[in-house]
Amino acid sequence: MAGSIFGTLFRVSTFGESHGTALGAVIDGCPAGLPLSAEEIQAYLNRRKPGQSAFTTPRKEADTCEILSGVFEGKTLGTPIAVLVWNKDQHSADYQAIWDCYRPGHADFGFDRKFGFRDPRGGGRSSGRETIGRVIGGAIAAKLLAEFGIRAFAYVSAVGAIEAATFDEAICAENLLGMPDPEAAARAAAYLKEVMQARDSLGGTVSCRVTGMFPGLGEPVFDKLDAELAKAVMSIGAVKGVEFGDGFGVSTRRGSEDNDAFCPGQGGTEKKSNHAGGMLGGISDGSDILLRAAVKATPSIGSPQETVNKNGEPVTIEIQGRHDPTIMPRAAVVVESMVNLVLADLLLRNSVSTVEKLKRAAGRA
Amino acid sequence: MAGSIFGTLFRVSTFGESHGTALGAVIDGCPAGLPLSAEEIQAYLNRRKPGQSAFTTPRKEADTCEILSGVFEGKTLGTPIAVLVWNKDQHSADYQAIWDCYRPGHADFGFDRKFGFRDPRGGGRSSGRETIGRVIGGAIAAKLLAEFGIRAFAYVSAVGAIEAATFDEAICAENLLGMPDPEAAARAAAYLKEVMQARDSLGGTVSCRVTGMFPGLGEPVFDKLDAELAKAVMSIGAVKGVEFGDGFGVSTRRGSEDNDAFCPGQGGTEKKSNHAGGMLGGISDGSDILLRAAVKATPSIGSPQETVNKNGEPVTIEIQGRHDPTIMPRAAVVVESMVNLVLADLLLRNSVSTVEKLKRAAGRA
Amino acid sequence: MAGSIFGTLFRVSTFGESHGTALGAVIDGCPAGLPLSAEEIQAYLNRRKPGQSAFTTPRKEADTCEILSGVFEGKTLGTPIAVLVWNKDQHSADYQAIWDCYRPGHADFGFDRKFGFRDPRGGGRSSGRETIGRVIGGAIAAKLLAEFGIRAFAYVSAVGAIEAATFDEAICAENLLGMPDPEAAARAAAYLKEVMQARDSLGGTVSCRVTGMFPGLGEPVFDKLDAELAKAVMSIGAVKGVEFGDGFGVSTRRGSEDNDAFCPGQGGTEKKSNHAGGMLGGISDGSDILLRAAVKATPSIGSPQETVNKNGEPVTIEIQGRHDPTIMPRAAVVVESMVNLVLADLLLRNSVSTVEKLKRAAGRA
Amino acid sequence: MAGSIFGTLFRVSTFGESHGTALGAVIDGCPAGLPLSAEEIQAYLNRRKPGQSAFTTPRKEADTCEILSGVFEGKTLGTPIAVLVWNKDQHSADYQAIWDCYRPGHADFGFDRKFGFRDPRGGGRSSGRETIGRVIGGAIAAKLLAEFGIRAFAYVSAVGAIEAATFDEAICAENLLGMPDPEAAARAAAYLKEVMQARDSLGGTVSCRVTGMFPGLGEPVFDKLDAELAKAVMSIGAVKGVEFGDGFGVSTRRGSEDNDAFCPGQGGTEKKSNHAGGMLGGISDGSDILLRAAVKATPSIGSPQETVNKNGEPVTIEIQGRHDPTIMPRAAVVVESMVNLVLADLLLRNSVSTVEKLKRAAGRA
Repeated sequence: MAGSIFGTLFRVSTFGESHGTALGAVIDGCPAGLPLSAEEIQAYLNRRKPGQSAFTTPRKEADTCEILSGVFEGKTLGTPIAVLVWNKDQHSADYQAIWDCYRPGHADFGFDRKFGFRDPRGGGRSSGRETIGRVIGGAIAAKLLAEFGIRAFAYVSAVGAIEAATFDEAICAENLLGMPDPEAAARAAAYLKEVMQARDSLGGTVSCRVTGMFPGLGEPVFDKLDAELAKAVMSIGAVKGVEFGDGFGVSTRRGSEDNDAFCPGQGGTEKKSNHAGGMLGGISDGSDILLRAAVKATPSIGSPQETVNKNGEPVTIEIQGRHDPTIMPRAAVVVESMVNLVLADLLLRNSVSTVEKLKRAAGRA
Repeated sequence: MAGSIFGTLFRVSTFGESHGTALGAVIDGCPAGLPLSAEEIQAYLNRRKPGQSAFTTPRKEADTCEILSGVFEGKTLGTPIAVLVWNKDQHSADYQAIWDCYRPGHADFGFDRKFGFRDPRGGGRSSGRETIGRVIGGAIAAKLLAEFGIRAFAYVSAVGAIEAATFDEAICAENLLGMPDPEAAARAAAYLKEVMQARDSLGGTVSCRVTGMFPGLGEPVFDKLDAELAKAVMSIGAVKGVEFGDGFGVSTRRGSEDNDAFCPGQGGTEKKSNHAGGMLGGISDGSDILLRAAVKATPSIGSPQETVNKNGEPVTIEIQGRHDPTIMPRAAVVVESMVNLVLADLLLRNSVSTVEKLKRAAGRA
Repeated sequence: MAGSIFGTLFRVSTFGESHGTALGAVIDGCPAGLPLSAEEIQAYLNRRKPGQSAFTTPRKEADTCEILSGVFEGKTLGTPIAVLVWNKDQHSADYQAIWDCYRPGHADFGFDRKFGFRDPRGGGRSSGRETIGRVIGGAIAAKLLAEFGIRAFAYVSAVGAIEAATFDEAICAENLLGMPDPEAAARAAAYLKEVMQARDSLGGTVSCRVTGMFPGLGEPVFDKLDAELAKAVMSIGAVKGVEFGDGFGVSTRRGSEDNDAFCPGQGGTEKKSNHAGGMLGGISDGSDILLRAAVKATPSIGSPQETVNKNGEPVTIEIQGRHDPTIMPRAAVVVESMVNLVLADLLLRNSVSTVEKLKRAAGRA
Repeated sequence: MAGSIFGTLFRVSTFGESHGTALGAVIDGCPAGLPLSAEEIQAYLNRRKPGQSAFTTPRKEADTCEILSGVFEGKTLGTPIAVLVWNKDQHSADYQAIWDCYRPGHADFGFDRKFGFRDPRGGGRSSGRETIGRVIGGAIAAKLLAEFGIRAFAYVSAVGAIEAATFDEAICAENLLGMPDPEAAARAAAYLKEVMQARDSLGGTVSCRVTGMFPGLGEPVFDKLDAELAKAVMSIGAVKGVEFGDGFGVSTRRGSEDNDAFCPGQGGTEKKSNHAGGMLGGISDGSDILLRAAVKATPSIGSPQETVNKNGEPVTIEIQGRHDPTIMPRAAVVVESMVNLVLADLLLRNSVSTVEKLKRAAGRA
């Protein structure tokens, strides 16, 4: 259980190093009969692809995916779906100078202590390239959720301290930072250029909204909807915090301010507000899921940094490889993928929560 | 996989409803040879016990635990450790009036939609009483971690907007709110009394620090140390956000500000700062783990609230049962327990991460 | 993952030592809305209860069970169901003489090597008393399966070399050995008395038939129906072999003899024969499941045996405690319980195998 | 949890259809620092490769494997090891005639009922080609076990009713049926030719012996060594029975005959006999593991068979594709692979069974 398998019923097993031969994912447990094509997965991969603007790494990877198994005549078979992406543009020589050093803010030191050694080329398994497997899985999960009218959308809600003040989903595709507020996007771009000139980097926040939810997803106690989402999102390399609904804001509010009143609504019970962000007691209540993740600045920066090498000797490094001055525009689809994976898994788990659902599934209700 | 089992190798299976016969936990996977007594578990349970001050529910429960299995002559056998706590002071009649209503901020609605019905007495399985099983497991995990010099301590870092400005662990036991800053504790107590008179409730934040860490805990990709901790802490009923190290603060900082420089140190490599909160790339780096959780105000309040009943008809309720005006002082040990459970599990998982460790474990190095 | 949790979706966590305080099981994942009472579980426990005849151990245990959680107003809540049985009639002193010896045919030696020490009283965790948890889980699983018309029945098909030649389920309850053939039962009883006088013991075979199956249970590749059943049955202490349908007989037959022809039948496709024992490619085909398990003779015998003690010194022991001269009549319900646990689990897993079933479960087909 | 992931700590995720693009496996949890090359895996794959004699399918596949990740400079990284084999010689047209029919003895019917449809080309996921992933995983597990001196060897112990009477491992590679007894191999070959002329097929038994075991592998109760092995071996498509040590023979023996006496031995305690086949109470005792599996005759035969098609109409089929008249010589390495997978997994699990082992693993003993 070395940690590269995610999910309980809808399970994704990912593999691949940054400068290895290939990366990919195997999805076990995807229900049969779901229409699926490589093009649909590719559309998600393209949203995280490098080399798309001056704001991201110049590494050139088409990141074209192939489906190796699990799909027949355009539909999932119910058997494992293996999807592969070949690495093409490795510049491993860039890493030679810092091969033996522990880059600040990176996983190098921990990997060495845990595994005894590591693949230093491009960060090996701890590279952001690892997220290719997540996006493959998330794309397939999204297809399944769509059958139920559920849709997650993640976007860059802040770059550094510059926050989006307005929201228009369509705007996200029209600026290089993927923000839903064109004015904030412009200011963020200008600020980022400054930071890049200082050979520095920036983080921000990614927000995600899920619409079309129905009540009942999430399991009591440990596998709550928010618990599973928190793990999923926090497992993304650069994320340092996650919150739901009013999040940290709840800590200063009274119960009477924070409770969402129920009222009769279209198609049943509704909430008058959504401070809770879509779940109560860890189970979805049918309102939109709202979450926000804090993303740290890319740790690979060109300016000089103090560190030590494997032998514990102090050294100064200037990281030369190809890096993202900010990962924000590429991070949104990764957050969205993790949200999709959690929801697909909990959708399956919810289907076995009562005898009545079991009977309906078996056609014996 | 209904969600009441936690952990991969060090596994806790909890059970029990608020007004049922008993609550408890079964721990499977605790290594053999660990000294363990019921008294040691009891010390942790006493920290979450109700009825200890005017600031918590008046429900009277001794919460005395019994060990039913897995311990022989004062040591763990390596077999499942079952620990039981009987319910004694149920006042189920208190809930009759709201039996059919969906209490705002509570899990009632979701449980009904998921399971078709629920135990309405005291919140059933979604009651805070469920955390007894967590604390039992956490206490045993703490014993194991102590063998390695690892110790987690969680405390109330804020009640409402009143934050602790100083930290003295010993102070926590000297005030009813469990805060490490006596001055903040006094102000918080005064404010809480006001809120209680308004038949309202308060939340706050719990912080946790883990000392004595060694590098290597946490698994790459999905089962990162912070991901597992985030799930663990977010699975506690009232938590709405979690962050590590500088947490949401990182979103506004540059890479050069956020990176922790490495330097030679006592016994090897150290970090000059700890913005990252004890882990890099999801693997512990030997520095202290720092996390903070946002806890919402108790949703059960005495003032009138709008809601609907099972039939979708609007009703107004005033919740009469025995409730905590704030769960903050009782929540800290629950956060600490979840942290202990995660660390014990990852300690075991780390032990099989290299061939060399396996050989040492087998006495064949 | 020390091994006391069974199942993937319908999960049973068992605990308890032979001479400890109590034994029991926690079932997590049982769907909500299933009618369940302690009496129904008790009926299964009574079938494995000791002290019922001269052919089983004289240990006197009522083995009365209590449900501690997970059931409300006679129905399962979808939350963990904890069930407890107290130990009452421990005679731990019986074991003092052999405390430090490794009893031949017993787990003592392996436990010591694995865990460093063990509870020697009555075999501790490796005692047949451990099966109480299995039977509790199996009884609940049987209730769920009954909702779908599925029923397992296990019986003693042979004691020593004396095999049942006829089958009448009702007969099993009418003889002390639980055999379906009265004539074989009588011969077996006579033979067993002889063996008992020689202070020796006997084994035999248990067979199980499952009726009312529908096609589709079992997962491709590793989690095949027969693979899961084989693990389940082989995990019972004394079982040394398991086979399905024609079992070992297939090794000498040609494909043309072994293949079961399909034909149109009542309610769809049927098989003309059932050499395969109810599954093809690891998936149920709707015909009856047929399995057979080989059970070894009780290793605790009164006649003198050579062995060694903890220090590796040779000793001769005569085991004095209370033991079953044959466990056959008590073993059948344990096999049946394990079969029920597997089927309940696979029933749940099958419910998420297609998008269509998911939609039906969610009421959106 | 559709069933294509095997193992608890040493986990193999396999994928691939018989006539799909590729097959392979991802191993998560293999400890870091294990020397590993594609050639070593290839040696195992070559033992199950088709087209090697008149006794196996004429399908021509080199089955050359590529390692895509998880290995760096000849050693495992502790990250997932992905290994791929491309399909080259698919003749999907052979299956057109029986596309809609349920072949007797095959998984077709169950797959259709479970998943709503299936890939009929070459059996899809239920083809024997699926075992490529098992052999990949088993080869890596074997490398790990070799570090501890543990070695499994499986061989054909019978073809039809013709059993090997002598054992010489070297002989297995010298005859086309992989039997350890040259005389039996010759008789079996002659008999098989007869059967082939009748357009029929044969099964047999595979036996496996594991040497170099040490005590302590296997977990109490459900995850016993023999339980895990039984599941592993029974999960192979054609296996219908499995037994350990004296196996079904124990059912007719007395306790005094079946118990293996302990005695002082080289390097500690030994057993005077090994009726139990290497484990007691589900935990290895240091003696050799002995198991035997019953393998049914290949269900694909050329002679006419009655069956039905998807619409439930009776049809007669003669299966034309390329099939193995017996899978016996190719099955041995698959059994061996599954045994290796179980042992590697239990080796890892055993390493966390005591506090002392944990301390040694961490270098803190």
